[in-house]
Amino acid sequence: MKIKKAVITAAGRKQRTLPLQTLIDRDSVEKSVLNILIDEVVRAGIQEICVVVRPGDEAAYAEVAGDHAGRLSFVPQVDSLGYGHAIYCARSFTGDDPFLHLVGDHLYVSRDDESCAQQLVEVAEAHDCTVSAVQSTRESLLPYYGTVGGRRLPGALDLYQVDTVIEKPTPTEAEQRLIVSGLRVGHYLCFFGMHVLTPSVMEALGRQLEAAQDGADKGPASVTLSSALAELCGREQYLAVEQHNSRYDLGVKYGLFSAQLALALQGQDRDDVLARVVELLAARDLAAGRAGER
Amino acid sequence: MKIKKAVITAAGRKQRTLPLQTLIDRDSVEKSVLNILIDEVVRAGIQEICVVVRPGDEAAYAEVAGDHAGRLSFVPQVDSLGYGHAIYCARSFTGDDPFLHLVGDHLYVSRDDESCAQQLVEVAEAHDCTVSAVQSTRESLLPYYGTVGGRRLPGALDLYQVDTVIEKPTPTEAEQRLIVSGLRVGHYLCFFGMHVLTPSVMEALGRQLEAAQDGADKGPASVTLSSALAELCGREQYLAVEQHNSRYDLGVKYGLFSAQLALALQGQDRDDVLARVVELLAARDLAAGRAGER
Repeated sequence: MKIKKAVITAAGRKQRTLPLQTLIDRDSVEKSVLNILIDEVVRAGIQEICVVVRPGDEAAYAEVAGDHAGRLSFVPQVDSLGYGHAIYCARSFTGDDPFLHLVGDHLYVSRDDESCAQQLVEVAEAHDCTVSAVQSTRESLLPYYGTVGGRRLPGALDLYQVDTVIEKPTPTEAEQRLIVSGLRVGHYLCFFGMHVLTPSVMEALGRQLEAAQDGADKGPASVTLSSALAELCGREQYLAVEQHNSRYDLGVKYGLFSAQLALALQGQDRDDVLARVVELLAARDLAAGRAGER
Repeated sequence: MKIKKAVITAAGRKQRTLPLQTLIDRDSVEKSVLNILIDEVVRAGIQEICVVVRPGDEAAYAEVAGDHAGRLSFVPQVDSLGYGHAIYCARSFTGDDPFLHLVGDHLYVSRDDESCAQQLVEVAEAHDCTVSAVQSTRESLLPYYGTVGGRRLPGALDLYQVDTVIEKPTPTEAEQRLIVSGLRVGHYLCFFGMHVLTPSVMEALGRQLEAAQDGADKGPASVTLSSALAELCGREQYLAVEQHNSRYDLGVKYGLFSAQLALALQGQDRDDVLARVVELLAARDLAAGRAGER
């Protein structure tokens, strides 16, 4: 299969202003976070991008979309019914096609020339199924991530056949159901925030949202991408590919700062920014020394 | 004299969005740049603050002003006639009173518990005259700053009687007119971006703007704070106080990043941020090593 569409979710209450922030990209150009994400997606061969936003945010987003604004369309998430619902809002955009999905409040920094999305899309196109990018993550971070269990595909270094998905598992759940042989002890495969999803994931989201709305569950917000993928992995081929890259959650404290430093260290401005960091560290210690003398 | 008013200029084309950016302050609280500047000013005993803005920016600024928004008033700079004119726009706010002035696109980071503005205001109140905060700056940076010449006041370590002010002097001008004995070779006293100004500075600005408007000069944009201070220093007492603190121009590339790192290194989150920086540096080198192995 060929992936030509992408869905970026950016409608969450706390995440909606993050794509509008300005950072300096690896190529030393000032860009909005949204623009950096679009570049990431376009490098993976995507031609049409749908951004799920809060109603009213469209104009601000369009303004900072950069050169590829023409590829962009917006879908408003009118009711705040959670992450699973936000993805589901894009169903008429995705239609019968598989699509790349990433979250709008993360930044993905590749360690080499191929972007994170490129690496993921290549695997999905080769294996013709739903694929989640994952990262080996230590147990203490499980409360933040969707986590998968499964077994390594024979002959494929970073590729796993997924048989279990649990959103934010407890350490006990993880130990009983999510241990993957070959990882470091106390490490699990947690979502990297980037997936290639097939139409059957949309169908699963739809079914679960309907059931939740009917009161059969704890409400639509409890329908996450993880719950839809958990349903999927019993029925059809679902893979996880381990990324050796980094993703930065921009919504946490110093998230933007860390992402900026990571971009700079991987990019053209590496020496300049390293020099600034060292200078600031030195200036502080010099001042501390001087204050001591007086 | 007692300084109770402050004027912050933020109407410049490139600088007007900078006060709206979010940083984490030394006390580990997320604040807008404007809010951090207001905190700085309020700690120096200021009661009323006037922000000179582009017409239409008032609402966005008021929204991010934080706890001290009640002290704030706005004056629009309707015509873009430069920095000197922006300060002059606040003349009905300042009236017959001396006032603290700082620029809205810089962040001031003190090395000790007293804020930069506090240190400056104390000197101005003690000496009852116009005082500019300055910093010993190497010759190569002269193209960026207003620069003063003069002589050290007897018995006062960091205090200078100013007799010359030149905006962005050439190295030759600096060598001929701005050398101050006691500084390191090749260093000059450049503006720190913070001043206590008396009503006579407003009068000088008014005279010069009028003359420039009448075509006697190169136009109102050539009227800078430096040109008004140059006129002043022949007529009345004008001091410069050397600051051993740091100021960060947020408008330059990586300006916000550097300011954030400086705030963090001087503040509560020092250890946390240092750990992140080291981790990112290490992660990169680890990845480089791993890529080399493959």
